[in-house]
Amino acid sequence: MLNIGIIGFGRIGKVHARSIQTRVEDACVLRVCDPFMNPEMEAEARKLGIMECGRDTQELIQDPRLDAVLICSSTHTHAALSMEAAKAGKHIFCEKPIDPDPKRIVEVITAVKQAGVHFQVGFNRRFDHNFKALRQAVEQGRIGDPHFITVVSRDPEAPSLDYVKVSGGMLMDMTIHDFDMVRYLSGSEVTEVYAAGAALVNPRIQELGDIDSAQITLRFENGAIGCISNSRRAAYGYDQRAEVFGSKGSAATQNDTASTLILSDEQGIQSEKPLYFFLERYMQSFAEEIISFTRAIRENKPTAVGGVDGLIPVLMAKAAAKSMHEHRPVTMAEIKQEEGIEDVES
Amino acid sequence: MLNIGIIGFGRIGKVHARSIQTRVEDACVLRVCDPFMNPEMEAEARKLGIMECGRDTQELIQDPRLDAVLICSSTHTHAALSMEAAKAGKHIFCEKPIDPDPKRIVEVITAVKQAGVHFQVGFNRRFDHNFKALRQAVEQGRIGDPHFITVVSRDPEAPSLDYVKVSGGMLMDMTIHDFDMVRYLSGSEVTEVYAAGAALVNPRIQELGDIDSAQITLRFENGAIGCISNSRRAAYGYDQRAEVFGSKGSAATQNDTASTLILSDEQGIQSEKPLYFFLERYMQSFAEEIISFTRAIRENKPTAVGGVDGLIPVLMAKAAAKSMHEHRPVTMAEIKQEEGIEDVES
Amino acid sequence: MLNIGIIGFGRIGKVHARSIQTRVEDACVLRVCDPFMNPEMEAEARKLGIMECGRDTQELIQDPRLDAVLICSSTHTHAALSMEAAKAGKHIFCEKPIDPDPKRIVEVITAVKQAGVHFQVGFNRRFDHNFKALRQAVEQGRIGDPHFITVVSRDPEAPSLDYVKVSGGMLMDMTIHDFDMVRYLSGSEVTEVYAAGAALVNPRIQELGDIDSAQITLRFENGAIGCISNSRRAAYGYDQRAEVFGSKGSAATQNDTASTLILSDEQGIQSEKPLYFFLERYMQSFAEEIISFTRAIRENKPTAVGGVDGLIPVLMAKAAAKSMHEHRPVTMAEIKQEEGIEDVES
Amino acid sequence: MLNIGIIGFGRIGKVHARSIQTRVEDACVLRVCDPFMNPEMEAEARKLGIMECGRDTQELIQDPRLDAVLICSSTHTHAALSMEAAKAGKHIFCEKPIDPDPKRIVEVITAVKQAGVHFQVGFNRRFDHNFKALRQAVEQGRIGDPHFITVVSRDPEAPSLDYVKVSGGMLMDMTIHDFDMVRYLSGSEVTEVYAAGAALVNPRIQELGDIDSAQITLRFENGAIGCISNSRRAAYGYDQRAEVFGSKGSAATQNDTASTLILSDEQGIQSEKPLYFFLERYMQSFAEEIISFTRAIRENKPTAVGGVDGLIPVLMAKAAAKSMHEHRPVTMAEIKQEEGIEDVES
Repeated sequence: MLNIGIIGFGRIGKVHARSIQTRVEDACVLRVCDPFMNPEMEAEARKLGIMECGRDTQELIQDPRLDAVLICSSTHTHAALSMEAAKAGKHIFCEKPIDPDPKRIVEVITAVKQAGVHFQVGFNRRFDHNFKALRQAVEQGRIGDPHFITVVSRDPEAPSLDYVKVSGGMLMDMTIHDFDMVRYLSGSEVTEVYAAGAALVNPRIQELGDIDSAQITLRFENGAIGCISNSRRAAYGYDQRAEVFGSKGSAATQNDTASTLILSDEQGIQSEKPLYFFLERYMQSFAEEIISFTRAIRENKPTAVGGVDGLIPVLMAKAAAKSMHEHRPVTMAEIKQEEGIEDVES
Repeated sequence: MLNIGIIGFGRIGKVHARSIQTRVEDACVLRVCDPFMNPEMEAEARKLGIMECGRDTQELIQDPRLDAVLICSSTHTHAALSMEAAKAGKHIFCEKPIDPDPKRIVEVITAVKQAGVHFQVGFNRRFDHNFKALRQAVEQGRIGDPHFITVVSRDPEAPSLDYVKVSGGMLMDMTIHDFDMVRYLSGSEVTEVYAAGAALVNPRIQELGDIDSAQITLRFENGAIGCISNSRRAAYGYDQRAEVFGSKGSAATQNDTASTLILSDEQGIQSEKPLYFFLERYMQSFAEEIISFTRAIRENKPTAVGGVDGLIPVLMAKAAAKSMHEHRPVTMAEIKQEEGIEDVES
Repeated sequence: MLNIGIIGFGRIGKVHARSIQTRVEDACVLRVCDPFMNPEMEAEARKLGIMECGRDTQELIQDPRLDAVLICSSTHTHAALSMEAAKAGKHIFCEKPIDPDPKRIVEVITAVKQAGVHFQVGFNRRFDHNFKALRQAVEQGRIGDPHFITVVSRDPEAPSLDYVKVSGGMLMDMTIHDFDMVRYLSGSEVTEVYAAGAALVNPRIQELGDIDSAQITLRFENGAIGCISNSRRAAYGYDQRAEVFGSKGSAATQNDTASTLILSDEQGIQSEKPLYFFLERYMQSFAEEIISFTRAIRENKPTAVGGVDGLIPVLMAKAAAKSMHEHRPVTMAEIKQEEGIEDVES
Repeated sequence: MLNIGIIGFGRIGKVHARSIQTRVEDACVLRVCDPFMNPEMEAEARKLGIMECGRDTQELIQDPRLDAVLICSSTHTHAALSMEAAKAGKHIFCEKPIDPDPKRIVEVITAVKQAGVHFQVGFNRRFDHNFKALRQAVEQGRIGDPHFITVVSRDPEAPSLDYVKVSGGMLMDMTIHDFDMVRYLSGSEVTEVYAAGAALVNPRIQELGDIDSAQITLRFENGAIGCISNSRRAAYGYDQRAEVFGSKGSAATQNDTASTLILSDEQGIQSEKPLYFFLERYMQSFAEEIISFTRAIRENKPTAVGGVDGLIPVLMAKAAAKSMHEHRPVTMAEIKQEEGIEDVES
């Protein structure tokens, strides 16, 4: 039995707790902690069979009974907590991003490596049934050599301007998932990024120095060309699709809907909009990533999404931002040099 | 908090236990019993937070702490246990069928009524996201007056001949769900049944006096015409679709698939087969029916699928069997008279 | 070069003229006749390169230059003209139905046989790209042995009551095409018919002794079961679909639309309604049937839709009408005996 | 009656002749000429009711009976013939491209303007049922302000290397249609082009200095961002799709197929590949563009695709080529200056 502690018992922490308690046979959550722990949160924990709730992160990290910790606290705490957990010899599942600063991520990667613990980053979309099926088709060679990797990723609603201000920019906040996805789908590393962005949804986002719409051209080591199409607001809902086109054909995924109902009347033929947002669409993937994490520990195999997988999308976001501002393609090599990042092994 | 006991801890009993423990906020499973209770089953129960496991059904039914029982044991025990539970004042969720004998079902309905307890039959497909969306479209009047109700229901594999022998016949064993579905979708009662059946999948099924393929024509009180198309084996998997066609249009549901992947190559355009079988396709509906049951108790409202809803599909199966054997349309009135069933209120 | 004359230069006569003149390399229309021939019709004919226009049917039939005639005149003239044309040694393409009276059709079949000419009936839907593809999938054994043949056939608008009065009834007027289709798709003969019909679209149709909605159960010699679902009015347009389900899988066709446009907005996902009516949907098939007819003559092979193919759907319509009125399944053998029809070879 | 002459009686010349003779009521083809006119071509012309066939282009252009000419000869003759026809006062339909040299196109535009004749370029895809429906949805404001215009355009087979050598490059030969399409769909002019290209299908194409795969980012005057995805070879056939995404939603078109057949078996669910190539897919659009051309003349309104519409895609191709070679975004203003093209009114 794998004993797990969860740091941060907000929305995502609870999702992971529920997955482990009901879906993972040989793991259980022993304790949770949250700086804002309150009686309601404690009651929720007990309902999931988690009897130990507290506010002290250090106590949890040092608990000798725990094999692994899930870091579900605020972003700015991810790197420090990861390094402390590594030092304490715990396997680590860390929500994305590890840190906005690539150098800091490298420190985490180094610490994890030295500690010899398993480390997984929360890029849950890799575990989505659709994208997993797409990746499998590519891996099995069913589309041959990849030529084009296309990701359409559009949110149902633009975030509040207050959120925009602290988001780190759309490329770092939203596109980061798509940067991970193109790496996952292509099975190849990006060498160059060209980003065309604009504030088409809400001009006030531009006033804040950010964008809400972007189209990003990527070049991959294997010669393939990538495209990410982002919008902060699709009127019809959360649009999450991808296509890999190759020498033998194409594999593509569509959106999920709440039902398959088709209504035909004098107006036309209507079907349902996509599932509303990431919690609905990716709910299953949150469970799958935790199942994958615990399996990696038990089987002592590399996790599916390691530290380097947490690093590179951040570098890609920086390359995209630079490309947009300087109005030219930017190589990953240039960004690595600029950020002082040597090649890091996963 | 609603305290629940589960009788029968096989596959479906476990499914319901998991739903209650993780999806229903104000209900919990206090105890389970099963005549074949063993250490493995006990361990599974404990993992779901159910500490009391036993073999004695009577003890469970008489447990004064319990508000409700779920009857998930063998079919032949359903009626007797339902009546005992009613007598003990417990609300009852009973797996389908209540009994193969309509008279016996009437006894259960009477007992439940006298006891004044809530009673729900396990016609889970009414809670499927697709069929629920279809029914809602009909209820909202989006297709106008229903003219045709069509249900396509095909299993991925014919059952073993041993199963066929004890199944009560395909119409009672498999079509029973579809008889319930046409009532649910149409919002009207069936008045007449004409069944055309054959053993097209496996001729040995005919030797056993059963069929594996059927097409059933139904007439409804509201004038609509129904069609059920059944096969024990669809090579492409579990085919579960329905359409309601009416004066203003048509509402139809398609099959669910494991992913939305579309693969395009020299052979053509391929998409995924339907989800394999009822456990995959209807998993969510098992949770929804239990949520609905507990809500009915808490709000003291009629359950969504009452005793009469358990009775009529059995009468329809009998009418269909008679129609097939006598090669003529058979009215429900004729069957009711033959079975000695007076009109029963729900 | 095959020289063709057309009798009746209304809508369908013109469609066939245009097909021959532009799509059939080694055939041409030499002359047309119509009892209501007028200058406008003559101008239209000349535009299609047809210089000889007249009113006299006999003159056309006796024209020694002609190899074949197309009978596109009123239904009541089909049988007589077919027999005259046969006597004159012309190959014959005759619009459906040959005659409402099965005995009269047998006379035509006999006359054609004696004359040794080619004869084709205008069941154009067999040449529709969708139904042809479906039939080919069945013929190639891709779905194995057929178990269910299902045809959904719904018109976009109910005809006027005046038309209903003279139509011969929906089963003879509309379902006749579907009776032909199930024979074509199954590759087997119908042995028994059970029809459930009603006037659900317009109660005044019932006052005229007709129906506007029907669901027909068919039994085939090969054991398969058929279903035809008819409505005189689908609010969303002309619904023309079919499925053949068999031991190895299912082949099904969907409706054609004017474009593949999909519009996604806050309301949902909308696509286009089916093509409006038979002229739009089946336009291509009218050309294909004429191409097939001329090819049969040139290659001296049986036509794709012979005299018996014109006879049997009429007998099926009679069986369906009898079934509906007597509220019981009716065998084809019974109808043949009643109509005094011996087995007729095609 | 509009009298038309056709210069060049190859594949496309014949297509246009057939369209006029059978689909355009008040126009007819009086004569055709082709430098390689032979008896077979003459026979084909006669079958279409065109009695005058010759080799002399000048004679045709000077024929005083003709109102309009269709220039369907080799590309290098387009500009000179257009100017001669304009001088002779004929309305002109000219196949694309007018000329590879923008300056030469401007000469044609000037000549046509001075002559006061109607001029249409053969960008037939604007008349495709799918793209026309898409443009209409955009025009009607159903998707609000356009944010992204995406065109996927992939051929079923790479051309021969011999063809590649003389093609002018993929961007000028193939993408030119997509450059026109994004202008048509967006209703806005392109301001900047960034092209990423590669020879992924066949490395020998790279040896010839050309590419076979490209992804092109476009910026429009109205702020929208465009994407063209091109491949010389899609294993599953001719992939021709587009999407316009805007503030109120998205409108997208799918591929056309030969039938709607869906085959479901143990392997999965299969549907048909796209129609093979441009002659199959766009056949209807060739007729529609000619109908539009003759209507513009009759109604004395601007043609749907004028001279400037022939010019700008050529400039876009040049911008794309420059972008690819210099590895940077290139503005249309820069290209216009480089080519010495002043702003030209349509």
